[in-house]
Amino acid sequence: MTANAIWTDVQAIRAKAPLVHNITNFVVMNNTANALLAIGASPVMAHAPEEVEDMVAIASSLVINIGTLSREWISAMGLAMKAAAARKIPIVFDPVGAGATSYRTNTCRELLTLAAPTIIRGNGSEIMALEDSSVTTKGVDSSEEGTAAEGAARALATQYGCTVVVSGETDLITDGSDVRFVRNGHAIMPRVTGLGCTATALVGAFAAVNSNPVAASTHAMAVMGICGELAAQEAAGPASLQVGLIDALYTLGAEQISAMLR
Amino acid sequence: MTANAIWTDVQAIRAKAPLVHNITNFVVMNNTANALLAIGASPVMAHAPEEVEDMVAIASSLVINIGTLSREWISAMGLAMKAAAARKIPIVFDPVGAGATSYRTNTCRELLTLAAPTIIRGNGSEIMALEDSSVTTKGVDSSEEGTAAEGAARALATQYGCTVVVSGETDLITDGSDVRFVRNGHAIMPRVTGLGCTATALVGAFAAVNSNPVAASTHAMAVMGICGELAAQEAAGPASLQVGLIDALYTLGAEQISAMLR
Amino acid sequence: MTANAIWTDVQAIRAKAPLVHNITNFVVMNNTANALLAIGASPVMAHAPEEVEDMVAIASSLVINIGTLSREWISAMGLAMKAAAARKIPIVFDPVGAGATSYRTNTCRELLTLAAPTIIRGNGSEIMALEDSSVTTKGVDSSEEGTAAEGAARALATQYGCTVVVSGETDLITDGSDVRFVRNGHAIMPRVTGLGCTATALVGAFAAVNSNPVAASTHAMAVMGICGELAAQEAAGPASLQVGLIDALYTLGAEQISAMLR
Repeated sequence: MTANAIWTDVQAIRAKAPLVHNITNFVVMNNTANALLAIGASPVMAHAPEEVEDMVAIASSLVINIGTLSREWISAMGLAMKAAAARKIPIVFDPVGAGATSYRTNTCRELLTLAAPTIIRGNGSEIMALEDSSVTTKGVDSSEEGTAAEGAARALATQYGCTVVVSGETDLITDGSDVRFVRNGHAIMPRVTGLGCTATALVGAFAAVNSNPVAASTHAMAVMGICGELAAQEAAGPASLQVGLIDALYTLGAEQISAMLR
Repeated sequence: MTANAIWTDVQAIRAKAPLVHNITNFVVMNNTANALLAIGASPVMAHAPEEVEDMVAIASSLVINIGTLSREWISAMGLAMKAAAARKIPIVFDPVGAGATSYRTNTCRELLTLAAPTIIRGNGSEIMALEDSSVTTKGVDSSEEGTAAEGAARALATQYGCTVVVSGETDLITDGSDVRFVRNGHAIMPRVTGLGCTATALVGAFAAVNSNPVAASTHAMAVMGICGELAAQEAAGPASLQVGLIDALYTLGAEQISAMLR
Repeated sequence: MTANAIWTDVQAIRAKAPLVHNITNFVVMNNTANALLAIGASPVMAHAPEEVEDMVAIASSLVINIGTLSREWISAMGLAMKAAAARKIPIVFDPVGAGATSYRTNTCRELLTLAAPTIIRGNGSEIMALEDSSVTTKGVDSSEEGTAAEGAARALATQYGCTVVVSGETDLITDGSDVRFVRNGHAIMPRVTGLGCTATALVGAFAAVNSNPVAASTHAMAVMGICGELAAQEAAGPASLQVGLIDALYTLGAEQISAMLR
């Protein structure tokens, strides 16, 4: 990963404004839409079974996030994922709270059987739960350290033939063989709700312009971490960090990436 | 349009705190509720078919926004619109993403057949799609320039006997014959999710206190643009602009309107 | 109520990070999740009937808020409340808009019959409507003064054997016999959507670490009011107050509580 390669993707997102179709949770819809707009993408949120296939047909990537799932939304997610697989656009999957209830873990597995994801992004305990049903998660914020979940991430990547991103103090990205790390980020970020979901949405934007899923994921996580650090320099707490993070995604320049990439 | 006439409406909203009943999308609910509270109105969000008619019965205006529509919400929107038409309170309709999927375009047409709207507000491509099914929209953010959609806006206004507002760098407001323009606003505003929806909600507040729909729409769009400009003076990016916009709606005074109205 | 007792609860929340399970409304989900994270709790939002009992099984308290209710959500609320009662974890209930429609008032009564709440928090008109069906509420923001609703609060507390919190310029907390008051807060707070819902969620966090419901409620309301005052010192309007309030929940220290508690 070089700062230049990250910047090339950012410029491509700003130039092409790829349409990122999100079926995501109620808690984060506003923030993820704003993060996508700020980085230069064009977000759309649509979940009606009657229209998700038509929306996928004009989208450049699909982001599925099960944070506040229910029966009808799961149907729509399945339809959208199959349509995205048929069109060969990237599918980014966020198993929020996998392991917290069997409903979440089982729903993830059913959806991933319908259409192979391009990229799965979760925290350590979610990735471990998805790989092994014996792992339990406390709510949606528990997280094993990124590197501790390396074995589960590799196995999951191999199982679905996809890239797996494990968020943590150090992010881990793997396609089952290669492993990369992103060390940017700030300790206050886990105190803002849905920043993991924002990371997933940004991965969707980067995957829309970069056909290498490991590179797209790594670049997105680095941008997320760098903008989090930029925001933390000015923030008085988690709410002002959220505001500053979106602002930083909008103003991010090449020289900031070069200077801050770890 | 004069600054005095705008200020008269703002004062009326602050004095009467009209109840604005919103059936709107998940992405913007928080922001539109806050915008309505900031300008002085009293927002309520309610979408259960079992209660929307009772809520309309105590409301001063109804705002319908199809941004994240689904079957049960559409039923509720229809019930609410018929109840509002029966009570003769203003109905403001936002066809978010019309033209992006046929489900959205068709749903708009069905709803508008159930009860004639008082005001329709959309961006250029949405208004053009609603008027002519051959137009397609990319997601929810595409926009033909306001003035380019003038023909469609006039035709739509005539078809439904309503006022049509086309948002853009210059906003266009027409009842089918007269055309007015609002030139306030700032280039960063389209990078904040749901500011179009906020504009629609503000139109609902102004229509609750001003029985002339063209005047109410024009005043609301001018206030939106002025507050966006005020926020842009301090904003470091789209998220701080969103914060500043709500603050500006709360602090807006007569002298600011006079000084900034274009 | 002493500053020390409040601080003891804050420290317990930060040390234990209790999982607070929220079934709440679309308008406030993001803000309440952020408020809970900021004070140190771990929020989860889950509403599928298939999983709410499993989520309650790992939660330390349950918060039910009917702000944007609909049929399927009511079923889930009932299931969750019965599961919480069986596990004897605190149930905090927010009757948003009770009295505005009979659907809301009746739904509240049905839910409260399924499982006795530990704490009910509402504004004056909601508490009066819940106690007496002849009271009507204008939308969701109307409020009788806290103290004016004292009779209704006492009666409701006695009826359900619970603690009742009435928000207002002065908050009132009663278990039917004792009555306590919280005088912190700021006049701009009612201009921010959902701060009542945030107060309810905070009550859920405090009830998770303090087994005395009157004390937990009183401490939560004092923290809410103090953080609102801290935010108001810097705020330019309601949106920056919302940001500052979350930041203040995160940075709140013992000395601020001591200095500001009224």
